[in-house]
Amino acid sequence: MALIVQKFGGTSVGTPDRIRAVAERIVATHTAGNDCVAVVSAMGDVTDDLLALAAAINADPPEREMDMLLATGEQVTIALLAMAIHALGHEAISFTGAQVGIVTDAGHTKARIQEVRAECVKDALADGRIVIVAGFQGRTPEGQITTLGRGGSDTTAVAIAAGISADICEIYTDVDGVFTADPRVVPDARKIDLISYDEMLEMAATGARVLQLRSVEFGRNHGVAIHVRSSFNDHPGTIVKEADASMEQAIISGVTHDTSEAKITIRDVPDQPGVAAQVFSALAEANCNVDMIVQNVSEEGATDISFTIPKEDLARAKRTVEAMVEHLGARAWSVDESIAKVSLVGAGMKTHPGVAAQMFNALAEADVNIHMISTSSIRVSCVVSGGQAEKAVRALHASFGLAEDEIVAEAAPAARGGN
Amino acid sequence: MALIVQKFGGTSVGTPDRIRAVAERIVATHTAGNDCVAVVSAMGDVTDDLLALAAAINADPPEREMDMLLATGEQVTIALLAMAIHALGHEAISFTGAQVGIVTDAGHTKARIQEVRAECVKDALADGRIVIVAGFQGRTPEGQITTLGRGGSDTTAVAIAAGISADICEIYTDVDGVFTADPRVVPDARKIDLISYDEMLEMAATGARVLQLRSVEFGRNHGVAIHVRSSFNDHPGTIVKEADASMEQAIISGVTHDTSEAKITIRDVPDQPGVAAQVFSALAEANCNVDMIVQNVSEEGATDISFTIPKEDLARAKRTVEAMVEHLGARAWSVDESIAKVSLVGAGMKTHPGVAAQMFNALAEADVNIHMISTSSIRVSCVVSGGQAEKAVRALHASFGLAEDEIVAEAAPAARGGN
Repeated sequence: MALIVQKFGGTSVGTPDRIRAVAERIVATHTAGNDCVAVVSAMGDVTDDLLALAAAINADPPEREMDMLLATGEQVTIALLAMAIHALGHEAISFTGAQVGIVTDAGHTKARIQEVRAECVKDALADGRIVIVAGFQGRTPEGQITTLGRGGSDTTAVAIAAGISADICEIYTDVDGVFTADPRVVPDARKIDLISYDEMLEMAATGARVLQLRSVEFGRNHGVAIHVRSSFNDHPGTIVKEADASMEQAIISGVTHDTSEAKITIRDVPDQPGVAAQVFSALAEANCNVDMIVQNVSEEGATDISFTIPKEDLARAKRTVEAMVEHLGARAWSVDESIAKVSLVGAGMKTHPGVAAQMFNALAEADVNIHMISTSSIRVSCVVSGGQAEKAVRALHASFGLAEDEIVAEAAPAARGGN
Repeated sequence: MALIVQKFGGTSVGTPDRIRAVAERIVATHTAGNDCVAVVSAMGDVTDDLLALAAAINADPPEREMDMLLATGEQVTIALLAMAIHALGHEAISFTGAQVGIVTDAGHTKARIQEVRAECVKDALADGRIVIVAGFQGRTPEGQITTLGRGGSDTTAVAIAAGISADICEIYTDVDGVFTADPRVVPDARKIDLISYDEMLEMAATGARVLQLRSVEFGRNHGVAIHVRSSFNDHPGTIVKEADASMEQAIISGVTHDTSEAKITIRDVPDQPGVAAQVFSALAEANCNVDMIVQNVSEEGATDISFTIPKEDLARAKRTVEAMVEHLGARAWSVDESIAKVSLVGAGMKTHPGVAAQMFNALAEADVNIHMISTSSIRVSCVVSGGQAEKAVRALHASFGLAEDEIVAEAAPAARGGN
């Protein structure tokens, strides 16, 4: 007997048949003696269809009205899923994000959750009902409808789980869990059974798309255990939770890669205080989501600044940089749209020197040239040419023995490289 | 400078192009110096599509979840219409029925409005904005989403107009107004410029589909003037308001007909107190919406009871009657699915005897046989064979000279017939 939140994405509820299958899974969980809350996304392509309708009417629609429009997608799913559960002879009740008390700020289309008032969920569970909640949406304290941005349904699920102190938040997806690398690139990639929030955050931030970054943050901040698992079978998936003694601390948890970014380099910027602040303040104002930033040591009073950004922000970033290059006194700037970021993530690297060195060696042996390097305490990321991404991932996966149950760290004397 | 509520139905907002056209009309009204509130239905076939989705999942879905589902239809329209108005450079804000404070009872799928708390509408108008409201929907005092049933958007428009003391509630439709008869049946039918609430109620109840019965009731109860007009042109339509001295009181306002009902007759029912109560209580319990009831004088201690019901209630009504016929001691019962109700409506008939007689004469001359007769103080309805409905309507329209500006009442000595 547990209190379980289950989240199903748009593909899982894409047709009436699939909604019925989801209903059967929820009812099975309920019949086994658990209290169940299901969080669902909009059906299949519904959100894209709504976006197309909006685009046909206004190229730059007000964000408040965009949220009013998009929130209908999940509302349709929750009603249909509740109907499907009733058809199986069980009591279900659906709630929109506004009704369920997902209170957000007023940042329409990308609102942040401020509070979860889940009284109605607790009441309905106490009545023996299955509760269905619309993912991706909430409301401001004043009652305006908001949406949480891309991947928001994962965040809703974790937030509801936190709000009702659920035992586990299950995120159903089309893969069996979180893997040591993308199985499409590395066929012998291994499913990870247990991973800490911090490692999962680094993996999500560097390319593992199975779980949304914000939902992991929310889980960490509120201590919600997350179980990423397949909606196609009953195999256990990957559990994301606080690192503890029970968790075997692998040196390396996984290799991730991300080809969705572009790199901009500004050359021969005068090495003076405030230059970086100027560049990145301007980019922030232009709503460019800067990821890696590398500035190397100065030569003859000038330095190069490189950074990566999502390709969707590239047009804005180019305009911003172009407008400031002369003012900065920089010599030139360039863009590389064909890059990949390849990252090694592992909590164990904190206490194992030499991981970075082994990574650079493995890339060198695979004849992969490194453009940029950036590290955190549990991650090393290298920017390489886009066409070499898969080769790099395979080389790293093999070098660190990730396909095996036991992680092999080669003895390597050098400290982790950094910038 | 006036405060105007404008209601647009599903056909008027069926495509992005049509939504743009509606936006242009609203903006024109606003630019002319008026405060504007628009009430809209779901786009075209959206409601039918949602019903089909629900039917694919549950043949008998819970009504609360049906409302959750259907309410999304208007929510999509309000967001798109607000976007379209923004695209024209004007400020608009949309509200769902729940947000705008349409408070209803908990009668899901056919909720009744209890209260309109339209503060947010007044506030937005005071800010100079155009306000867009989702028709057809509201919420219970506890925040459950409800819908108002068929034609509910008209009722929303009139309720909002009452709640903000609007000067006029304009109902935009695909015809030029209310006509003396259905123009598809009577080509020379004349548009009515002014009509009283009571006459409009009788016309709506007997087949004039241009305005929903409940919206007229709401208008009468709250003194809201309603202007039924075309969304395709700027011609004045029909104004529905309290009868007053300025309103020329026509003897006959119009002829209506309705072929959507069936007739059930129970023969030789013992003529005892309580028999009719038994029959119609049972039908009410079976949720059958009985319209006309005729019981004739008793012969040899037995009588016949006939009544009409919408064809959609016929299956339930048959089961109910079949189950009670023996218990009632009735001899037999029968069903006629091919009937039409033809009605004459006019406030002037209160003071003009002979209208019914002239009606019966006109039908006799057209060789139309009358099955049932029922009257109110401003209406006479006859049930005739379904195949003779159009002939009957044309005969009555001609006999009472409704195509002319002046209404002709033939001198006729007999009092209005009754039952």
